[in-house]
Amino acid sequence: MASAATAWGQLGAHLRETQLLGSIQSTLYWDQNTRMPSAGASWRGEQLTLLATQLHARQSSAAYADLLAAARQHWNSAERCPEQGRNLDLLEQDLQRQQSLDPALVAALAQAKADGYDRWQQARSASDFSLFAPALQTLIDLRQEQAKQLDEPRSCWETLAQPFEPDLRLERLEALFAPLRQRLPELVAQACTRPRPRSADWDLEESSQQDLCDELLGAWGRNPAITCMARSPHPFSITLGPADYRITTRVVPGQPLSCFLATAHEWGHSLYEQGLPDQSHQWFAWPLGQATSMAVHESQSLFWENRVARSRPFAEQWWKRFAQVGAPFSGAQDMWQAMNPMAPGLNRVEADELSYGLHILIRTDLEISLLEQGLEVKDLPDEWNRRYEELLGVRPMNDAEGCLQDVHWSEGLFGYFPSYLLGHLISAQLSEAMAVSIGQPEHHVREGSLDTVLHWLREHVHGIGRAMNAEQLVEKVSARQLSAQPFLDYIESKLDNRGKW
Amino acid sequence: MASAATAWGQLGAHLRETQLLGSIQSTLYWDQNTRMPSAGASWRGEQLTLLATQLHARQSSAAYADLLAAARQHWNSAERCPEQGRNLDLLEQDLQRQQSLDPALVAALAQAKADGYDRWQQARSASDFSLFAPALQTLIDLRQEQAKQLDEPRSCWETLAQPFEPDLRLERLEALFAPLRQRLPELVAQACTRPRPRSADWDLEESSQQDLCDELLGAWGRNPAITCMARSPHPFSITLGPADYRITTRVVPGQPLSCFLATAHEWGHSLYEQGLPDQSHQWFAWPLGQATSMAVHESQSLFWENRVARSRPFAEQWWKRFAQVGAPFSGAQDMWQAMNPMAPGLNRVEADELSYGLHILIRTDLEISLLEQGLEVKDLPDEWNRRYEELLGVRPMNDAEGCLQDVHWSEGLFGYFPSYLLGHLISAQLSEAMAVSIGQPEHHVREGSLDTVLHWLREHVHGIGRAMNAEQLVEKVSARQLSAQPFLDYIESKLDNRGKW
Repeated sequence: MASAATAWGQLGAHLRETQLLGSIQSTLYWDQNTRMPSAGASWRGEQLTLLATQLHARQSSAAYADLLAAARQHWNSAERCPEQGRNLDLLEQDLQRQQSLDPALVAALAQAKADGYDRWQQARSASDFSLFAPALQTLIDLRQEQAKQLDEPRSCWETLAQPFEPDLRLERLEALFAPLRQRLPELVAQACTRPRPRSADWDLEESSQQDLCDELLGAWGRNPAITCMARSPHPFSITLGPADYRITTRVVPGQPLSCFLATAHEWGHSLYEQGLPDQSHQWFAWPLGQATSMAVHESQSLFWENRVARSRPFAEQWWKRFAQVGAPFSGAQDMWQAMNPMAPGLNRVEADELSYGLHILIRTDLEISLLEQGLEVKDLPDEWNRRYEELLGVRPMNDAEGCLQDVHWSEGLFGYFPSYLLGHLISAQLSEAMAVSIGQPEHHVREGSLDTVLHWLREHVHGIGRAMNAEQLVEKVSARQLSAQPFLDYIESKLDNRGKW
Repeated sequence: MASAATAWGQLGAHLRETQLLGSIQSTLYWDQNTRMPSAGASWRGEQLTLLATQLHARQSSAAYADLLAAARQHWNSAERCPEQGRNLDLLEQDLQRQQSLDPALVAALAQAKADGYDRWQQARSASDFSLFAPALQTLIDLRQEQAKQLDEPRSCWETLAQPFEPDLRLERLEALFAPLRQRLPELVAQACTRPRPRSADWDLEESSQQDLCDELLGAWGRNPAITCMARSPHPFSITLGPADYRITTRVVPGQPLSCFLATAHEWGHSLYEQGLPDQSHQWFAWPLGQATSMAVHESQSLFWENRVARSRPFAEQWWKRFAQVGAPFSGAQDMWQAMNPMAPGLNRVEADELSYGLHILIRTDLEISLLEQGLEVKDLPDEWNRRYEELLGVRPMNDAEGCLQDVHWSEGLFGYFPSYLLGHLISAQLSEAMAVSIGQPEHHVREGSLDTVLHWLREHVHGIGRAMNAEQLVEKVSARQLSAQPFLDYIESKLDNRGKW
């Protein structure tokens, strides 16, 4: 039997190499979305398929299983370090999953994701769902097959949601979302009846938007030696190495605040990644050094987007800067109102905090229907439009602004959408805990003490990694179970205070 | 014995996967040079080392050797298609080389290249050669070891030059360069005595330079679906897939034409890659679908930079556009003179056609001395400066504008520099052949019939791939052996005509 040091060392070396390969995959993804010319898509799809196959082979190999077993044996026999125990639990769970999958399915999925993304882009620019439908059907079939092969005591949708939201059950999700299903439509209806100041259409120069984003991240402490920014059709944040963090933003014509808010949002994601534990160099490769769930990730991006950038004190500090480059703001209130329209629209990414949840309820219901309840792909656009009319009172004019607007399904990501809304709930509940501990986030925005806020987040959220799952983390920080109440309280108070500037 | 179709099919599939991995490596390189934040260098180095190790294992494996042997057996027995025969020759040669190398050396080299590049950047920004010297010594040691392991009937430098300039011998190189060693210093001295119109210092806005580059490539038929442009510290061209061609350029303060000429230059490289044979999808992965040598590559970039963009008719067409954005041109002659200063400087990349060769003679001699003749690393800066003074009559003020100016040695590229000068010779000799066949390139610039020029290059140069080596290609196209004479004739005529506008 190898010594404990050898067993852990060999396992660590294996994980490190896996992480190297995984981060190469991420680099290809980054390039694909920021710079790759369109005709490069097919070769890139083959590259990604090759890497996915290699990664799956590494993560399911007998050699790796032996390394893991040896480390577990040492842990059982002597050193019961709880953190390494948690690492082993997570690694064993993932090994079990990877070993359940047929390599042919892994390759087919990688290829279908690349094809799906490519077809979705074409379908969206032609606003024609039928161009994408066959690819979506393939992805659904493959994902259903994946869930079958994984053979967990979970429903198909639940099984697919695990990589994003570990331990989430549909029943729990429904319980968390029930108050939102009831209250959000009421609040939207209420907000729509209130008089709203008319705002003329306006826009900002692309270069001004870029400058404002640079200033924002400068003010928020960006270190250019470890971070960079680019443009992509859909903003995202990605980590390519232990000292290589990247975000993208985009400029949307006619939506002069979109780029700025997307930057704030993605920077929140990046701050979470930048704050993940790194006590030893291996943490980047070990599970505990990774994000615990997409909902927690989203709670961090939403914090900086909504609690900071959409706050009143932020508008007080920034409105003049926006006015300088052409925004029609004669005071902070104008900026705050532009940041918080509180009016339902068709677009999820540009939605305000009030109607955002309704977008997610629609998508969540639809993907569960597609995967588990027999909704046919061809019926998706009608079903989508019907629900938008019902819940938000608006109806898409075409597929591009309807069911083709989001990228996720084109990459076979099912089970991902709820994380966005859970992120709102978590952000609100963490913010309450923060308020008790160090004072309201808005107070720190006013005082210019955002470093205090960041320090608190680093300590209570970022630095935890995967030591706890999302709900355990929230419970530890806020001393109560996750619920929709803090979010509803926050949003109702924001609505109430709207008139009392 | 497998059927012929199977043998070729399996070999083709293996090569395709190798090419996928190789192009992933290229994507990492592209990202490293265009976008990666500086602190990402160390992890990137590990990624590149991992890929280099994997690639070497694939390219030297017994399984691959068997595939190649089976294909050769079929070729010997029946189908003596000469093109596939050439493919096999080149593959066997490369297999032999890869099998000679110790995997540990391959990994050490990849890591040393990443380290060397990183240290060189630091040394250059501090203008302190001593920061880079240990890394350079390591690279020299490893490359000498590589040449020893390859054990070819060639000198160390010759062995290392093979991947760039197949079949090149030092003796032949010296014979080709001898007339340049004699004539270039005379021409430089002569050019310096002539009166030159004084030109005030001027510059162009970065955005204007970018616009001019976009217009240039638009005029030269760039297809954005398969090409993209970015910025990097050193301009380069790279192919990431069979439909994914990329170039970079840079803006140099105080050198308002640098960005434009670098774009023209890199576009010439890219056109060569875009024109490589692709009769079957496999050509991208087979040797014949690749560039035959760096010198031929360079001849193509130099053609578009020098024969087109630095020509008189080009200045006639473009000077007003430059004047519009602030260039002090009152006529085409001003632009032509700014494009062709004919004055020696310290910087290779910004050098004109006249003094360019002297830069290369210095570097070639120095790297041969370092590898084969016992020049010590610590003596490099002094030796560099001495030769600059001797050959070009200028002396670097510091290491940054001296021996640290080029990237190549920092990546362990020895044997590469002569290709640049051979490219000048090849470009001139091919241009003579073109003139005989379809008329002077300058004529086509004037007539706006650059598509005719491109068509000729596609047919006679690009489409040949590696079917011939550089000298064979030149001999076939021009019906005589490669020599320095066409280049000297061209440059002397350009000098003579300077006064006769």
